[in-house]
Amino acid sequence: MSGAKADLQAHSDTDLGVEPAWRAPLERMRRSIDNIDAALVHLLAERFKCTQTVGALKALHGLPPADPSREAAQIARLRALARDADLDPQFAETFLSFIVAEVIRHHEAHARSEAAPPGEATP
Amino acid sequence: MSGAKADLQAHSDTDLGVEPAWRAPLERMRRSIDNIDAALVHLLAERFKCTQTVGALKALHGLPPADPSREAAQIARLRALARDADLDPQFAETFLSFIVAEVIRHHEAHARSEAAPPGEATP
Repeated sequence: MSGAKADLQAHSDTDLGVEPAWRAPLERMRRSIDNIDAALVHLLAERFKCTQTVGALKALHGLPPADPSREAAQIARLRALARDADLDPQFAETFLSFIVAEVIRHHEAHARSEAAPPGEATP
Repeated sequence: MSGAKADLQAHSDTDLGVEPAWRAPLERMRRSIDNIDAALVHLLAERFKCTQTVGALKALHGLPPADPSREAAQIARLRALARDADLDPQFAETFLSFIVAEVIRHHEAHARSEAAPPGEATP
């Protein structure tokens, strides 16, 4: 298979008899999705830097990794923002839960690594 | 209770005997997290607009909602972007899977609403 043909097929689940008239807007949308995904990854990287600092402060001061009142406020705020942005509020909530679950996993790992074994001095 | 004090308590799971010296950076980080979350919600709203267009095109032209070769390329790209941004590549992949699952759910709903009953000409 030629490179161009392979490339065309690689982007399609259907046969090669595609209609260029609608293929172009599909590819344009996919390029926008790729740009948005790159922005999302970079924002998530920044968010994790923040939550790592929060996790370190919590572990250092013996605060629990989860904070239900803070999370309830975050959910209510994100649902309102989602509604204003024409995004399904339930999706925004599920999305936040997914991120928070990952963050708590990190916080718990951090708390475990900060906890010294009994009788041993904490560095 | 003063507004500032109430605000401090509203953000805490612990009692009021907190140390202001570390409470301030914690609250600062949380404000940054809230800003990032607002940006994430707005980007997700834009992403869903794109995927709705893609879903409509797919449904109109009888393409399946899922596209494994496109998804594999997206995963590889996002893992590389994540590595460059100091984000756990596995998290980036899980994140994309979470978003794609939601998008496919939308596409399938769209395909069902576009599908003509048996024996009837597809528009």
